[in-house]
Amino acid sequence: MRMVDLIAKKRDGQTLTKEEIAWMITGYVKDEIPDYQMSAFLMATYFQGMTDTEQGHLAFAMLNSGDRLNLDAIPGIKVDKHSTGGVGDKISIPLTPLVACLGVPVPMISGRGLGHTGGTLDKLESIPGFRVNLSEQEFKNQVGQIRQAIVSASGDLAPADRRIYALRDVTATVESIPLIASSIMSKKIASGTNALVFDVKVGGGAFMKTEQQAEKLAHALVGIAKQAGVQSVALLTDMDQPLGITIGNSLEIAESIAILRNKGPKDVRELTLTLAAHMLVLGGKTHSLEQAIGMAEDALRDGRALAAFKQLIQAQGGDVRVVDDPSRLPQAKYKVNVKAPHGGVVTAIDTNALGLAVMQLGGGRARKDDKLDLAVGLVLHKKLGTPVTAGDTLATLHADTEDVAAVEAAVQRAFTIGEKAPTKAPLIKKVIR
Amino acid sequence: MRMVDLIAKKRDGQTLTKEEIAWMITGYVKDEIPDYQMSAFLMATYFQGMTDTEQGHLAFAMLNSGDRLNLDAIPGIKVDKHSTGGVGDKISIPLTPLVACLGVPVPMISGRGLGHTGGTLDKLESIPGFRVNLSEQEFKNQVGQIRQAIVSASGDLAPADRRIYALRDVTATVESIPLIASSIMSKKIASGTNALVFDVKVGGGAFMKTEQQAEKLAHALVGIAKQAGVQSVALLTDMDQPLGITIGNSLEIAESIAILRNKGPKDVRELTLTLAAHMLVLGGKTHSLEQAIGMAEDALRDGRALAAFKQLIQAQGGDVRVVDDPSRLPQAKYKVNVKAPHGGVVTAIDTNALGLAVMQLGGGRARKDDKLDLAVGLVLHKKLGTPVTAGDTLATLHADTEDVAAVEAAVQRAFTIGEKAPTKAPLIKKVIR
Repeated sequence: MRMVDLIAKKRDGQTLTKEEIAWMITGYVKDEIPDYQMSAFLMATYFQGMTDTEQGHLAFAMLNSGDRLNLDAIPGIKVDKHSTGGVGDKISIPLTPLVACLGVPVPMISGRGLGHTGGTLDKLESIPGFRVNLSEQEFKNQVGQIRQAIVSASGDLAPADRRIYALRDVTATVESIPLIASSIMSKKIASGTNALVFDVKVGGGAFMKTEQQAEKLAHALVGIAKQAGVQSVALLTDMDQPLGITIGNSLEIAESIAILRNKGPKDVRELTLTLAAHMLVLGGKTHSLEQAIGMAEDALRDGRALAAFKQLIQAQGGDVRVVDDPSRLPQAKYKVNVKAPHGGVVTAIDTNALGLAVMQLGGGRARKDDKLDLAVGLVLHKKLGTPVTAGDTLATLHADTEDVAAVEAAVQRAFTIGEKAPTKAPLIKKVIR
Repeated sequence: MRMVDLIAKKRDGQTLTKEEIAWMITGYVKDEIPDYQMSAFLMATYFQGMTDTEQGHLAFAMLNSGDRLNLDAIPGIKVDKHSTGGVGDKISIPLTPLVACLGVPVPMISGRGLGHTGGTLDKLESIPGFRVNLSEQEFKNQVGQIRQAIVSASGDLAPADRRIYALRDVTATVESIPLIASSIMSKKIASGTNALVFDVKVGGGAFMKTEQQAEKLAHALVGIAKQAGVQSVALLTDMDQPLGITIGNSLEIAESIAILRNKGPKDVRELTLTLAAHMLVLGGKTHSLEQAIGMAEDALRDGRALAAFKQLIQAQGGDVRVVDDPSRLPQAKYKVNVKAPHGGVVTAIDTNALGLAVMQLGGGRARKDDKLDLAVGLVLHKKLGTPVTAGDTLATLHADTEDVAAVEAAVQRAFTIGEKAPTKAPLIKKVIR
């Protein structure tokens, strides 16, 4: 087999066999296939796509490049959640203790942020002392004992994916559905989970800009999960405005705590409850989604979910006191209000621009090795459809410098204030199995 | 500027600016841009193409990566020919002395073969002693003295092209019109020629399989030449069967000598005369193509062209005696006749398959560093439209091993023998200026 022939095959829109894909991934990990051939293959795949079978083979080839965790010793159906990522998406943080406290083990392997705001791991690290780098044994023990852990992937899970992802990042081949799907699934299957709920974001603040693209990705994920014998369901959820009212690492932890106190923004609560309900059904706790939502609502109301979050923080070395006193989280030095230039109603929010504004404040990474300022971020006072009068505060910047004029202007520009309230899009657009 | 942004721009079908292209090529030659980004860019270009202006910028950026020969000291309009390459294409060899003997300097920079048969340089090296690696000064002196030289490109002409070509070869990005055109033109402009005739091959034995593709490439070449202030004309010529009756390095030298003796196959003679006539017109010897053909016919008839070929061989250190005694060229040990399995008329010839057959005999390169067997090859006894009876010899293999059963079968399969003679395609399909 020659890599140049496989590149030509993909370039010409043909389908690669299981053996060809396995040969390519094995050769790449062994450094027998150079980066320059892999990047040409990735670009050809960007243009030509892959069949369902092909992207499954790719996910399994990447999975087989490393270890696979075995969580069989932990009783119960282990259920994980994966979000394709959006601005203000902190759902993993309230969701994990909520589901765990209802008896379903959640072995969550999560990531860091790149592009604008931090990822789940960055957010958790704004809790003083919180460790995300557990050893495999620590991870297993903790999921066994308290039914939950949120950790970073170890170097031995799907190493092919890590190398290919790094290459995609610098060769403009990130936005390809088969590459996204196989990347996600190689890691998720490697993590040893029995079931998965996917939160596929769609809209201006997400990777997938249209419902059609998002649906295609959702089908790809569910399809590969099925091939791996992993039960799954995918939700298409709205990302035409940020989720909740906070963007920024410690601000999002505070919002997560509010949710666990049975408070917090309506949209974050709705999505947390819905995802929890699907996880409870997959975890075998009930067959009824309505009943599952009731169970989750109870756990938020009676404090069980909040207590479980304290357990999670404790287990991973964090300062539990932040839960009762969020002012112990990193606080920004300056607060700057961004005003509405004129009255009307918020008709659009450039969600991506808000994410980039937080990155400019230091809360997200432009490059992989950028250090984050966990205190900074944005609090939104107006969301889609809200009436405003000139001079109203649209958002508050939390900054560690006073020199924020450019960010302030960008945030102001991100709000479109018009005359007529937009039609409200449902938060959950579609469920795909 | 970031390379990843330029890749994304091309991927999304946008047009790169002159500055962006120059920055990219300069960075690549300086090793500031890695191969893996360049190969992703090349694949994106394969899919999205380039505008006329863009491919011109690319050619000039590659040209500017190295030296540019200055032939101004040599009197007259210097005219070169470039063929996109085909099976049995030995035209450069009789053409160069023919045009030179009529007063037009031909500073030809040529290449080696990759894929099936050898290139012009390989063919010339079957003349014992013939040197193709002249220094820049030797090249200039020789063109000044005898108005002709056929040499390999020095390392300092368009080094960006050499690196990019090597990368394209292993990343399945060879067959892209803007990449082919800018590669050819960067070298040709660097060689210091004043005018150019392009022979763009079209058909089963050529890079460009359809007339439409070939025409696109011809326009690209002529367009870039115009931007460089180089006069040019492009001929689209038929490659649905091999050119002439020989394929293989020393066999093609013998055929070239026959042409210069006013003999040889009709198609080789016709193409040589036509290309020579266009070169004579570009070289300012006449305004009339008909008159130019007459001049060239005279030079073949009266021995001036043959004498000029002897001069060329002499100047480049080769054994001139091969001209009068072609048996001094390398001879293969074995001759094997390939027979017609049944009677009829030759309706199709898989030209590419014949090229590959010669490669299998050792006459072409599968890899860049393969050493060639200059003696081996094929002599065709039947061409398109020729009637055959069962058992007739279709072709004779010239081999250095007796173990040629596989090649024999492949050559037999390359001939389609049917009932009705195919419509004869004209050898010169179109002239593009």
